[in-house]
Amino acid sequence: MPATTAHDIQKLIDGLSPESLGELHLRDFLLTWDKSRTELESVLECARILRAMRESNISPRVFDSGLAVSQFRDNSTRTRFSFASACNLLGLTVSDLDEGKSQVAHGETVRETANMISFMAEVIGIRDDMYIGKGHSYMLEVAGAVDQGFRDGVLEQRPTIVNLQCDIDHPTQTMADFLHLATEFGGIDKLKGKSVAMTWAYSPSYGKPLSVPQGVIGLFTRFGMDVRLAYPEGYALMPDIVEKARRFATESRGGFRVCSSMEEAFDGAQVVYPKSWAPYSVMEERTTIVETGDSAKLQDLEKRCLANNARFKGWECTDELMKRTDNALYLHCLPADISAVSCSHGEVAADVFDRFRTPLYKQASWKPYVIAAMIFLSRMNDAKSALSRVLQRSDTRVS
Amino acid sequence: MPATTAHDIQKLIDGLSPESLGELHLRDFLLTWDKSRTELESVLECARILRAMRESNISPRVFDSGLAVSQFRDNSTRTRFSFASACNLLGLTVSDLDEGKSQVAHGETVRETANMISFMAEVIGIRDDMYIGKGHSYMLEVAGAVDQGFRDGVLEQRPTIVNLQCDIDHPTQTMADFLHLATEFGGIDKLKGKSVAMTWAYSPSYGKPLSVPQGVIGLFTRFGMDVRLAYPEGYALMPDIVEKARRFATESRGGFRVCSSMEEAFDGAQVVYPKSWAPYSVMEERTTIVETGDSAKLQDLEKRCLANNARFKGWECTDELMKRTDNALYLHCLPADISAVSCSHGEVAADVFDRFRTPLYKQASWKPYVIAAMIFLSRMNDAKSALSRVLQRSDTRVS
Amino acid sequence: MPATTAHDIQKLIDGLSPESLGELHLRDFLLTWDKSRTELESVLECARILRAMRESNISPRVFDSGLAVSQFRDNSTRTRFSFASACNLLGLTVSDLDEGKSQVAHGETVRETANMISFMAEVIGIRDDMYIGKGHSYMLEVAGAVDQGFRDGVLEQRPTIVNLQCDIDHPTQTMADFLHLATEFGGIDKLKGKSVAMTWAYSPSYGKPLSVPQGVIGLFTRFGMDVRLAYPEGYALMPDIVEKARRFATESRGGFRVCSSMEEAFDGAQVVYPKSWAPYSVMEERTTIVETGDSAKLQDLEKRCLANNARFKGWECTDELMKRTDNALYLHCLPADISAVSCSHGEVAADVFDRFRTPLYKQASWKPYVIAAMIFLSRMNDAKSALSRVLQRSDTRVS
Repeated sequence: MPATTAHDIQKLIDGLSPESLGELHLRDFLLTWDKSRTELESVLECARILRAMRESNISPRVFDSGLAVSQFRDNSTRTRFSFASACNLLGLTVSDLDEGKSQVAHGETVRETANMISFMAEVIGIRDDMYIGKGHSYMLEVAGAVDQGFRDGVLEQRPTIVNLQCDIDHPTQTMADFLHLATEFGGIDKLKGKSVAMTWAYSPSYGKPLSVPQGVIGLFTRFGMDVRLAYPEGYALMPDIVEKARRFATESRGGFRVCSSMEEAFDGAQVVYPKSWAPYSVMEERTTIVETGDSAKLQDLEKRCLANNARFKGWECTDELMKRTDNALYLHCLPADISAVSCSHGEVAADVFDRFRTPLYKQASWKPYVIAAMIFLSRMNDAKSALSRVLQRSDTRVS
Repeated sequence: MPATTAHDIQKLIDGLSPESLGELHLRDFLLTWDKSRTELESVLECARILRAMRESNISPRVFDSGLAVSQFRDNSTRTRFSFASACNLLGLTVSDLDEGKSQVAHGETVRETANMISFMAEVIGIRDDMYIGKGHSYMLEVAGAVDQGFRDGVLEQRPTIVNLQCDIDHPTQTMADFLHLATEFGGIDKLKGKSVAMTWAYSPSYGKPLSVPQGVIGLFTRFGMDVRLAYPEGYALMPDIVEKARRFATESRGGFRVCSSMEEAFDGAQVVYPKSWAPYSVMEERTTIVETGDSAKLQDLEKRCLANNARFKGWECTDELMKRTDNALYLHCLPADISAVSCSHGEVAADVFDRFRTPLYKQASWKPYVIAAMIFLSRMNDAKSALSRVLQRSDTRVS
Repeated sequence: MPATTAHDIQKLIDGLSPESLGELHLRDFLLTWDKSRTELESVLECARILRAMRESNISPRVFDSGLAVSQFRDNSTRTRFSFASACNLLGLTVSDLDEGKSQVAHGETVRETANMISFMAEVIGIRDDMYIGKGHSYMLEVAGAVDQGFRDGVLEQRPTIVNLQCDIDHPTQTMADFLHLATEFGGIDKLKGKSVAMTWAYSPSYGKPLSVPQGVIGLFTRFGMDVRLAYPEGYALMPDIVEKARRFATESRGGFRVCSSMEEAFDGAQVVYPKSWAPYSVMEERTTIVETGDSAKLQDLEKRCLANNARFKGWECTDELMKRTDNALYLHCLPADISAVSCSHGEVAADVFDRFRTPLYKQASWKPYVIAAMIFLSRMNDAKSALSRVLQRSDTRVS
């Protein structure tokens, strides 16, 4: 084994909380604030354990067969491959529910489809992030459908729903972000009191989901971080999530503050996360227009929205801004709109992005393990013993 | 083990007929009437055994590697996932032949494509149900191509073709339907003499295949059921299949009768299967028009066909009709056109459908196991011993 | 075991050159001329060994988990299925990077995408053959990106890039072609001095890549074959590849000659490979036009190109031409344009094609094993011992 020995891995396993593991068993992972702080820590620790195992050529494959259904209602590269990697690592085979090739268009109900794809499914990963008020509701509808199917004896097992990004939260992203921070700063406990600037940034594109900033403020405040949220007028997030973040900060003795400029948020920050998103009101309007199918109105909305974005071209993460920080670590969920690279003006200056490219890629590298941990802890009865058994048997991943 | 013990499963295995298993080895599964009654029973029993194993966390994985090619020339949700589940359970990896992404468009022959995809294929599952006279012929052409490829030493193994719905039959559906009946009524022998109404029902859609009603009358009459087929004028099935059903009923001492109303078919029935299909003549006309590529003619045909359907809106499975039956079990291959749910007028009233939702989903739950059984019995030499070996070794599916 | 015994397979393994295996470890397979002759022989031998194992029901699965990413920027049937088969045989799961469904369109860089898909990837197979000067460069860019990702600690392993056809070479095809020749002629050493006619042939299609003829002259000359390249005026290949072929022929004491007619190339040939390709200059012009997005110019180019092709309808592999050869074996990478079958006039007469159909399909059957060998030798540390271990453990592929 390279960096880590079996003994080190066993110590990580020993540190897991049996109580929190029990509460994760057979539960969905939809929103981080549905989980206790200990549960979240267990997922993060399990992700570290699975990574240490793979790096030591120990295969944590616990399924001899079983499907992992994916449903992407929006484009995806890294989450798609992260989900594929996580499922593959555990022995599950991904089967994609492509609504275009299915009979969903034939007027089939969500309840029916959810059951029809689940006869041998252990997991259903869903991305549905395009419309406010839709994505999370859809996941709950699928969850309710498989609950009932399992209760009625239709399904032999009740698959776990994993939120691969909805309109409200993006837990596989923010958990990976947080694990990256914990790694960079030397542990979860070291993040207490660290100040993080979650700020809007200009992008020449329109309609980016709110799930990342909402997920970040809703998660980082759980662990005592001092979170500053900054955005231009009109770009507020969903009020109840902001309320949650405020409450979490109080509970964890961290901080939460809304700022009106990047400068204010960046001053002395130890972590910055500048990222574009659409105004909540525009997302709501879009949802209504899409339902009516009025494409002229939709184009008009896009035009208005881009024009409004353009008023805030100054919201760019430049080297000058970075100098205001306390030598901050730059985060992004990727892909970023990089000025003079992927667009003329964007979220971040090329020199800042380049300087942080390697840490950014490392940030992304945690996502497969976070997803694998969510699946492992939800599916395995007595997950702690299961991890120990995997370590004991030490099956090689590459023989 | 939950409901079933290893001892129970071994008894099921002991009950299999070695002779019928031998005849299934290396044979395709295209039409149920190509198989003997004992062979069909073996497939049904093997499906039950594989299900009992999985429910007892015993993995029936018999392939360490191997491809299962799927080719869907029409949309599919439940058959696609059933095929994926079945193959995955046995250790095969599905590789989809997407004609749009292949070089098939470059004028490649069926013979060539069939061989090119089969070098490591154990199974080829095909759905080709859109045009009368095409689907089954296509499957025979693929079968002939891989026969010759194997004979000529091009292929190391001759993959098994499994009909995932053609223009004539839909064996994975009707075998699952029948296994559902056997389960609900307490055994295959209990179905003897039970009356089943296979009837047309109104739908606002056009061009639905004839394969389900044909498959049902061609299968259920094999086992002594009293089958009543009802449809409006002009909606007759393929004459030779009807002839077969009549003969099968005589041989099995069951019954077969064509009725001209749902009422007549439903009276005292113990099972009802009301489902829309297109008139045979319309399907034939469509095939001819599609070949000429005349889209105006095709639209005209659709219009005429929908107008004709509309004359029979009364053919709906209502609660009133259900009262004429002997407390009948309602079947459907799904998705159903549910009145006031997926359309204003459809095949079935919402209250009837809702009452039978759970049994309907259970009906569908057999399809993965039926497909797995077809594959297992075709691929495994001495399948009986193979099942016993799987039971003996008792590899866990989830460790 | 059927034809081959474990003893025979062990002898094949013993014959592998440890030195050449060492040089293949962790290297990409992009162009055959990047590899030494001994390395190429090792790949061919390993392909034979893996085939012998599978035919003896020995599973050479060495991965318990791991992704194989495929990226097809052009249509593919046989290469797609060959790659899927090869990966499956070794235990890798294919995950397709479909640029349409990914965020690549969002301005993501190659460098970023390459890393994002590679966290658990062992192999990346790429087809990018449409534009001169693009495909190979793209593969180098991906290779550079994962090199750096691995160096920077972003990737736990550096995936191997396998060229599934670029603008310059098509190594999985030509290596399979060559292995077919070696099998038909009784060994690689028997091919020394054999004359092969690699000739242009007429096709009513436009824009076929140059990678097959270039790959053939660049590979077959390595092993002392006497290669004759023939094409009509204007259909020359890339000059530096022709130069390479000339040099290789000198080094291997084979031959290389450019002819101006099929007749001249076919005279006394023992192998013929008549195949259409686009003129290099047209491919270059197309690349430039595609970049400007001028579709009128593109249509004009296609028209001119087809008209020019039509001047050479006589370049067809007929039975009469075959009579000039020394009872030559006919090769094609498939699908071929067969006169009076897939088009009115094409590359080959139907009777010639029919006579060689079985050997042609056998030629294609080597591709999965060639790809598997490339992956095996690149991924396994001490591949010779790894093959011996696989043989020793003798896990069954079908149990």
